[in-house]
Amino acid sequence: MSGKVFGVALGPGDPELITVKALNCLKKSEKIYYPATQSSKGNQDSFSLVILKQLDVEEKKFIPINVPMSKDRSHAVKAYADLFLKVQKDVEEGKQVSVVSEGDISFFSTFSYLLEDFRKNSVDFEMIPGVPAFILGGSVGKLPLVTQNDKLLVAPDLENKPELKALLAQNQTVVLMKISKVREWIKEFIEESKLQFFYGEYLGTEKQFTCTDMDSLRDRQIPYFAILIFYGNK
Amino acid sequence: MSGKVFGVALGPGDPELITVKALNCLKKSEKIYYPATQSSKGNQDSFSLVILKQLDVEEKKFIPINVPMSKDRSHAVKAYADLFLKVQKDVEEGKQVSVVSEGDISFFSTFSYLLEDFRKNSVDFEMIPGVPAFILGGSVGKLPLVTQNDKLLVAPDLENKPELKALLAQNQTVVLMKISKVREWIKEFIEESKLQFFYGEYLGTEKQFTCTDMDSLRDRQIPYFAILIFYGNK
Repeated sequence: MSGKVFGVALGPGDPELITVKALNCLKKSEKIYYPATQSSKGNQDSFSLVILKQLDVEEKKFIPINVPMSKDRSHAVKAYADLFLKVQKDVEEGKQVSVVSEGDISFFSTFSYLLEDFRKNSVDFEMIPGVPAFILGGSVGKLPLVTQNDKLLVAPDLENKPELKALLAQNQTVVLMKISKVREWIKEFIEESKLQFFYGEYLGTEKQFTCTDMDSLRDRQIPYFAILIFYGNK
Repeated sequence: MSGKVFGVALGPGDPELITVKALNCLKKSEKIYYPATQSSKGNQDSFSLVILKQLDVEEKKFIPINVPMSKDRSHAVKAYADLFLKVQKDVEEGKQVSVVSEGDISFFSTFSYLLEDFRKNSVDFEMIPGVPAFILGGSVGKLPLVTQNDKLLVAPDLENKPELKALLAQNQTVVLMKISKVREWIKEFIEESKLQFFYGEYLGTEKQFTCTDMDSLRDRQIPYFAILIFYGNK
């Protein structure tokens, strides 16, 4: 069997929300690399590892990719470069290995940063998709994301209220990611706009918290793994 | 055990791209309703049934929901109303049943039309998400949909070239669905814009065809189950 690397999506958090294909691929892989963030004190945190540990896959295959927590992107770039070298070596040795990501594998995933190097160096690779967190949001909230001819926008970075207002005027559904960055003004915006919304933290995990009303959201600390879905101009 | 209806996502076409949770739910369900379109000559066509038949689930559970092919929405509305009554009866009898949809269950899915009736009549329901076709598109094309702070737009309905041009100016990635409706001008737009794109038909099925160059797309008849992903202003 020749070597190959698989980018494998783990899904949004619930271990049962991985696809059958992704789970089979992990079972067959000889090594499974997973992203882990590392604080300056050396503590490791990995959402991917929490999911992996709940799957029927041998733990001895798990290998962390340490990405230091830093605003300076060069640390992450170095971590991906190191990962590429490891994977390239595995594939040259004829191994089948996986690099995992929570959510989907082509949707804001670290795997994306490796593709160019794989292509340039003729490393054989394949991607196995998964359910992104915002798609789970539609099911958990029991509010369909889009119907008929609705436009849906996923926006991970927002400047201010006028920008969000403009996006909502053009699209029926707007999904906001990384909302911890806009926690200063987003609650005020919801109160003012009176729009229907769905808020979800750690979707699919034991820590899951969701709400669709402002009373439940008002005093909440918004963590990194949180999304907001606005149901706009209907 | 009390009755309940599950909206179950089948994923984009490949039977292995269903989630473990969705597959387990179908195995436990007593009946599985699936959408089928019916031509005026009485021929039935169902993308969902093609997927279902490849799963390890008893075929005798499968029940078609016939939605007549027609521009008049009232026929579809009647089909959903009939389905609601059937499901309500099942749940009152204490049965656990599923209503399936290809792709995701909250993303342009027929299940959405039932929710209001479920709520009004206190029918217990749950939704199990899946991988939408455009998410598979990112993996099959090996072109990441979004990275870093990219905005992604899903647009199922487009008027004309200026509208598409405006959307591409505002978003890094634009996914077009139902492109058979714009087949008159979309190929011309691609040639003129010279943007990077991914075209996919019947993704995840045996009939899958994909390309990222105009020479392969130029003479192609675009079917209903086709998407286009534009990689915009990068």
